[in-house]
Amino acid sequence: MTKRYKFESAGEIMDTSYITVPAHFTVDNTIAYFRKNAKNKENLHYLYVTDDNSRLCGVLSVRELLLASKEQRIDMVMTKDVVFAPSDMDQEELAKIFDRDDLLSVPVINEQFQMIGVVHVDDILDVMTEETTEDFLKMAPVSPIGESLKDASAILLYRKRITWLVLLVFMNVFSGAGIAHFEDVIENNIALVFFLPLLVDSGGNAGSQAATLMIRSMALGDVKIKDWMKLFTKEISISFLLGITMAAAVSVVGFMRGGMEIAVVVALTMTIVVMVGSLIGMSLPFIFNKLKLDPATASAPLITSIADIVGVLIYFSIAAWYLGL
Amino acid sequence: MTKRYKFESAGEIMDTSYITVPAHFTVDNTIAYFRKNAKNKENLHYLYVTDDNSRLCGVLSVRELLLASKEQRIDMVMTKDVVFAPSDMDQEELAKIFDRDDLLSVPVINEQFQMIGVVHVDDILDVMTEETTEDFLKMAPVSPIGESLKDASAILLYRKRITWLVLLVFMNVFSGAGIAHFEDVIENNIALVFFLPLLVDSGGNAGSQAATLMIRSMALGDVKIKDWMKLFTKEISISFLLGITMAAAVSVVGFMRGGMEIAVVVALTMTIVVMVGSLIGMSLPFIFNKLKLDPATASAPLITSIADIVGVLIYFSIAAWYLGL
Repeated sequence: MTKRYKFESAGEIMDTSYITVPAHFTVDNTIAYFRKNAKNKENLHYLYVTDDNSRLCGVLSVRELLLASKEQRIDMVMTKDVVFAPSDMDQEELAKIFDRDDLLSVPVINEQFQMIGVVHVDDILDVMTEETTEDFLKMAPVSPIGESLKDASAILLYRKRITWLVLLVFMNVFSGAGIAHFEDVIENNIALVFFLPLLVDSGGNAGSQAATLMIRSMALGDVKIKDWMKLFTKEISISFLLGITMAAAVSVVGFMRGGMEIAVVVALTMTIVVMVGSLIGMSLPFIFNKLKLDPATASAPLITSIADIVGVLIYFSIAAWYLGL
Repeated sequence: MTKRYKFESAGEIMDTSYITVPAHFTVDNTIAYFRKNAKNKENLHYLYVTDDNSRLCGVLSVRELLLASKEQRIDMVMTKDVVFAPSDMDQEELAKIFDRDDLLSVPVINEQFQMIGVVHVDDILDVMTEETTEDFLKMAPVSPIGESLKDASAILLYRKRITWLVLLVFMNVFSGAGIAHFEDVIENNIALVFFLPLLVDSGGNAGSQAATLMIRSMALGDVKIKDWMKLFTKEISISFLLGITMAAAVSVVGFMRGGMEIAVVVALTMTIVVMVGSLIGMSLPFIFNKLKLDPATASAPLITSIADIVGVLIYFSIAAWYLGL
């Protein structure tokens, strides 16, 4: 009976073909043992060493074995500081260990510290490709497809895409409701509608940038949840600079189309919308992480929808107040 | 004098520490040679075999060396079919070879087919991480930062983000111009503005999904430029299904807010906008590829902006026609 391991864990992806030798073997014993047992094991570059209780206690590359003097005991030649993985370690976590320590294989152990398998770097390359694809598609957002795009049926692709699209439609109803709330303001100054896509999209774009930077840095382990405060403070400066630059650009268009008053409203809105969009965008991945959801759920379309709602409210509030409508 | 290799090529990232043996050596000779020369070369799991003209002609793992009979000639034990890389091969191309063939090392050769170095899988892991980060950030779109997000200064991050944001602002001016063109239609039926964000965003969202699927599949080598026609045809079916589902969802809201006529305009617009957005989204990565640009340049914010312009024109044209405004 084969044990069942957790989905996408070290236990699930490990190879059970490997060689262990007892610590008391000599190099000569080990070479003889290796020659007898390594015939059909292709992916074999390391030997693992076990103590009297069959617990993992060392590792030795085939190269080191070949270089050692024949009469030495294995535990005198082996590396004692073995990097290992418990069988329930998530494969994404394991990929980070391979990446950090430049390893070719990592032994997998059970609760008794006994070796039960080995994960090879080529399997980790596959894992990384797969996880990256998942993260990419989440940004669209599309659910993982699990097969080649060329082979996937239209119906399958429809199902992987429709859920998020409909959810986003209902989020956008709130933007519509925001606009409806300000119907009087718009009727009194129809020129305001001209700047609507430009202003709300800018908030969404700046927010998408901030979110993507966070998502990627969190996936690489470079940014942790405790870094939020520091990064939030920095984002205030960055988004302020972005906001005033974009406000300067857009105020020219505002002046040409609507005169001084519209230019002021548009520039002021741009600065605030870009700042608020950026701060929401950089914070959402942290919030999702806190809620035990994948930070990558903070996709560009989701942030665009949120920024739309916030943008509409900010824009028409400023317009109503400044133009006295 | 060290030769300079192309940026991000096999020659640039290769390790020049490796062991070659002549093909006429016996296994015994080779072991003796290996014991003398492999002392300080840590990342060593393969030996490369050269012919009389020092050209690469075979490869042998240390494990195979240890398993072979001592009197055999090396060219009888080695694998003749060596996977190698020319020194100017792009590192992203090389990563695909490692991934496809599950290799630990790939020898690098010059124009005379002589071995000049070796690339190890751990360097390829770093390459993959770096290339993935670049692709991720392009989707935001943000220019590559080249350092940790935590350490990057506010000014650096500002510079990496502002160019695209300002470009997108100017694209959005076209959406505004579209709206201005239909000012009369809007003034006659202000309720239309309610559905504006919802309709144009839906086109952008469906387009972002289609583009992301293409970009990822192209990066993995799963989709090639010649597949465009087949995928375009399939996208017509998929986006039609997506469009009518979303039209059904939104027509209820349309009916409640504006009655039957608005419901028809909104449903019709939704179907067309989702289809056009999807087809633009799936085609843009191919167009960028044709223009020798990275397909990942077809980012969600870029597609959103294009879909906005197209969406505005489609929406108000349908409204003007159907409502006879």
